[in-house]
Amino acid sequence: MTATLRLALAQVNPTVGDLAGNAAIVREWSGRAAEAGAHIVAFPEMMLTGYPVEDLVFRQSFVEASQQALLKLAGDLAADGLGELAVIVGYLDADGPARLGADSTSPVGPRDSLALLHRGVVAAHYHKHHLPNYGVFDEDRYFVPGDTLTVVRAQWADGSQADVALTICEDIWQAGGPFAVAASARVGLVININGSPYERNKDDVRLPLVQRRAAEAGATVAYVNMIGGQDELTFDGDSMIVAADGALLARGPQFHQALLVHDLRLPEADPDAPTGHLGAMRVARVPLTTSWAVPEGPLADAGVTDRLGDEAEVWNALVMGLRDYVRKNGAKSVLLGLSGGIDSSVVAAIAVDALGAEHVVGVSMPSGHSSQHSRDDAADMARLTGLDYRVEPIQHMVDAFLSNLNLSGLAVENLQARVRAVILMALSNQEGHLVLTTGNKSELAVGYSTLYGDSVGAFNPLKDVPKTLVWKLAHWRNTVGEVIPENSITKPPSAELRPGQLDTDSLPPYDQLDAILAGYVDGDQGRDELVADGHDPALVDRILRLVDGAEYKRRQSAPGTKISFKAFGRDRRLPITNRWRES
Amino acid sequence: MTATLRLALAQVNPTVGDLAGNAAIVREWSGRAAEAGAHIVAFPEMMLTGYPVEDLVFRQSFVEASQQALLKLAGDLAADGLGELAVIVGYLDADGPARLGADSTSPVGPRDSLALLHRGVVAAHYHKHHLPNYGVFDEDRYFVPGDTLTVVRAQWADGSQADVALTICEDIWQAGGPFAVAASARVGLVININGSPYERNKDDVRLPLVQRRAAEAGATVAYVNMIGGQDELTFDGDSMIVAADGALLARGPQFHQALLVHDLRLPEADPDAPTGHLGAMRVARVPLTTSWAVPEGPLADAGVTDRLGDEAEVWNALVMGLRDYVRKNGAKSVLLGLSGGIDSSVVAAIAVDALGAEHVVGVSMPSGHSSQHSRDDAADMARLTGLDYRVEPIQHMVDAFLSNLNLSGLAVENLQARVRAVILMALSNQEGHLVLTTGNKSELAVGYSTLYGDSVGAFNPLKDVPKTLVWKLAHWRNTVGEVIPENSITKPPSAELRPGQLDTDSLPPYDQLDAILAGYVDGDQGRDELVADGHDPALVDRILRLVDGAEYKRRQSAPGTKISFKAFGRDRRLPITNRWRES
Repeated sequence: MTATLRLALAQVNPTVGDLAGNAAIVREWSGRAAEAGAHIVAFPEMMLTGYPVEDLVFRQSFVEASQQALLKLAGDLAADGLGELAVIVGYLDADGPARLGADSTSPVGPRDSLALLHRGVVAAHYHKHHLPNYGVFDEDRYFVPGDTLTVVRAQWADGSQADVALTICEDIWQAGGPFAVAASARVGLVININGSPYERNKDDVRLPLVQRRAAEAGATVAYVNMIGGQDELTFDGDSMIVAADGALLARGPQFHQALLVHDLRLPEADPDAPTGHLGAMRVARVPLTTSWAVPEGPLADAGVTDRLGDEAEVWNALVMGLRDYVRKNGAKSVLLGLSGGIDSSVVAAIAVDALGAEHVVGVSMPSGHSSQHSRDDAADMARLTGLDYRVEPIQHMVDAFLSNLNLSGLAVENLQARVRAVILMALSNQEGHLVLTTGNKSELAVGYSTLYGDSVGAFNPLKDVPKTLVWKLAHWRNTVGEVIPENSITKPPSAELRPGQLDTDSLPPYDQLDAILAGYVDGDQGRDELVADGHDPALVDRILRLVDGAEYKRRQSAPGTKISFKAFGRDRRLPITNRWRES
Repeated sequence: MTATLRLALAQVNPTVGDLAGNAAIVREWSGRAAEAGAHIVAFPEMMLTGYPVEDLVFRQSFVEASQQALLKLAGDLAADGLGELAVIVGYLDADGPARLGADSTSPVGPRDSLALLHRGVVAAHYHKHHLPNYGVFDEDRYFVPGDTLTVVRAQWADGSQADVALTICEDIWQAGGPFAVAASARVGLVININGSPYERNKDDVRLPLVQRRAAEAGATVAYVNMIGGQDELTFDGDSMIVAADGALLARGPQFHQALLVHDLRLPEADPDAPTGHLGAMRVARVPLTTSWAVPEGPLADAGVTDRLGDEAEVWNALVMGLRDYVRKNGAKSVLLGLSGGIDSSVVAAIAVDALGAEHVVGVSMPSGHSSQHSRDDAADMARLTGLDYRVEPIQHMVDAFLSNLNLSGLAVENLQARVRAVILMALSNQEGHLVLTTGNKSELAVGYSTLYGDSVGAFNPLKDVPKTLVWKLAHWRNTVGEVIPENSITKPPSAELRPGQLDTDSLPPYDQLDAILAGYVDGDQGRDELVADGHDPALVDRILRLVDGAEYKRRQSAPGTKISFKAFGRDRRLPITNRWRES
């Protein structure tokens, strides 16, 4: 005898701090899942609070708001007529105060949790066991690990039963943890809810990972991930269901919301399956009596969506990251300087794709050193996309400074970039647009930009995009509709802050620069490793000196001496776009 | 029989990343300790690398450089004729690669370690057991905890022996850890080396803490802490020796380097003292055969230095924080806008105390809205301190923008602040000074500043100083010599960006504002807690709205979408003033 479970995975876009808005998303998508006949719908990690909540964890009022929102959601779902649907939703829980100070080792505190809501109540919950603490993750700072694997024994109306284990995100990245315990507990399905940030090619890592864990658990694994931009992170979805033998049963799209509805034939629950301590964790079994019927008609099949190509994937991440940064901050439009060069052209194209041309203002700010092709290329960009185009010449303002200050060389070059920043910020103040800045990762890494000049802005879509990838993205974007002037892509890059200036006056060719930056910045490789990898030693030394020297520029951004336990910045790690409001 | 140990605690100022410079400090101060007849000299936590090293831990080349610098230091000390002195020094060690990725739970990796150097070799080492992970600390991200307490059995030339346990920083903040194990191991002395950042009144917490731990260990405790500014942190020293009965035997100064040399009569080592697993940790005993002689003459007494008063303590932190930020970044001079108001006056006074008046440039930048008293007060400040004073009127530049752009209201107010920022950055580029910004914590909290205007600068001494404390500091500083014009202290605060403007037009009185900010920002209190504490509900709501609204301003500082494992900023947490250079 087998039980047939109709499982729905809701790949949706929560906002950090917006408890009411996130709960509304759960209700809406639970309704869709019920319409599709689903028995269980699983939402992402920290669905109710958004992810990552960072130091909001330390606000007891926020923890309590999350707990209360969960109870209210359970009631609201039942009132919506969705009480029979099992809704799995991530939230912030706590069984004690946050561990803010030292001199305490009590194993209580905030939890990265999920709840299974059914018939108006919390029928089961689970606390994340493995807490990631590398890269963008700091979960040992915030959470206490759970030590109990929750296994729900669902009973259909016909009496058939299946065992489902509930896990969260990092639990799936480690061998020997909850998935091994799930195998000992002989479950038929492991559900894993995620807030798994996008990185290039991460989709290539996820499928083999889920396959390894499905083999370890000896069970089907259902992986659901959020989508959306949250400050510097984007979440790419890529939800999937993998059978115990590694077969990919279903896979959702990247960067778009989706409801995957898929029928699974699960093995009948074993009445003699063990419980209690099974290896690394205790197993808690939770009976769930339902009126679920075996689905009628053909089996639901969510299908396997193709993965995006490399450039398409990055482009989608950048468009979503910008769109959500603007939207989640409550803004509607953006403003940027359009130089006619490749970086500002690509950012303008991203902005148009993210917000629509009617919400993008491009300002050409020519100086005496600006070439005619720069002005023409900027105008072409505006014509190709239909964005709101303005021209504000800067020489008059630059001259007002030069006639009063005794400046030369680099100070004069930087002055032009800073006058442009003043213009953009003035228009931002006057009209309400967010300013975009457009420096790519290569030039930021080596400090090839003007502090408080072209670096000014609310958001930078290219902050983590090397220059060679900027060109690839431009080519790719034009293949799906021309928006970037060909001349902006092909001409040699120049800052045009002095006559005849070219990037290559100051920097190595970008293909060489980017190859070494990938090792030094992304890979944490040392000088000797880079040379051993075949890079020219003199070039390695030159680029490492440029990067280390550029740290000096990054240092000039107003840190200050800390004298209290909680200062702004370093100590007050609030998510940038949090919507949590005390009043 | 008792052994008399002449112990030296070296309260010195290392720099993150400067391995050669830090080793030179150890050699110099070890020489001083030897001259004073010391048997052991203890340096702070992570002395060789500086603290905190943050994501430098993930550079294998940096870890290896630390390990090699330690071995070189051991040899250099012996070559200096200091081989008989036991030198305890913190450094970065590792017994495996950094745990950068997931899918690994091996208990190896970087260590926050100390070594005892003697006769040219590493005679003993210890790995920190308790890793703090709150406030500014993220050590679970970086280090693997040690599980073995190192107890050195020192043998004098006369055959007397004493047992000394070696511990690091957070080990002293937790009960039931290394100090409890030290009690079981029956040691006579526990040495604890620290990188303990300053917070207001932290000295009031440390003494009772060390006393509690001395009682727990049943032994004398010697606590040594670094001094100096490192990015946003300052370290205040406050080294001390406390007897098992809680008596304070010696205490060093705050914020100044010092060598505390103190004779301790230690109980003779117990030949039957237990070893192996003792409670939370294993005990490793290390014999140390020396030619130490019992000190001749009167017992050395390091004395107990008085603690500073509240304002003096904060002032010293701010002066040291600024001085070290400038010095450790390789700069020599600073530049700031002098408005005649209290904030810029106090920052100028801090800068003069930190760097000397000859390294401080103050620029008065009057507009049409600047009052005569503002100009006079700025000039008075220059006269009282002797700093390099300039006047650069801004109206001509402001008009150049106004005549080309259609601006009104707040956009015009902000324009003036931004023109001033362009002038300061131009002078910085031309003459090489670091720009200081001067916004206090109260106005930063509520967003009462111009983004990319008065917020521009390399460092802000007042970033964590509430406005009411700014006034107190000004009063206090003038009591030790008048440097701040009385009128700057007493006049009502104004931004002078429009006629007749006062801070109270936009903000509640600062005493009320600061009281609520202390609860909301520093204390993580929620709205209901603040009201329960007796604050007016309407005022609480108003201030919370201001703070939450100001987040929007902090959001407009160029984050960007992350697409790789290591981006700059969030993912690449390098100490700002690191001096680690690969080439």
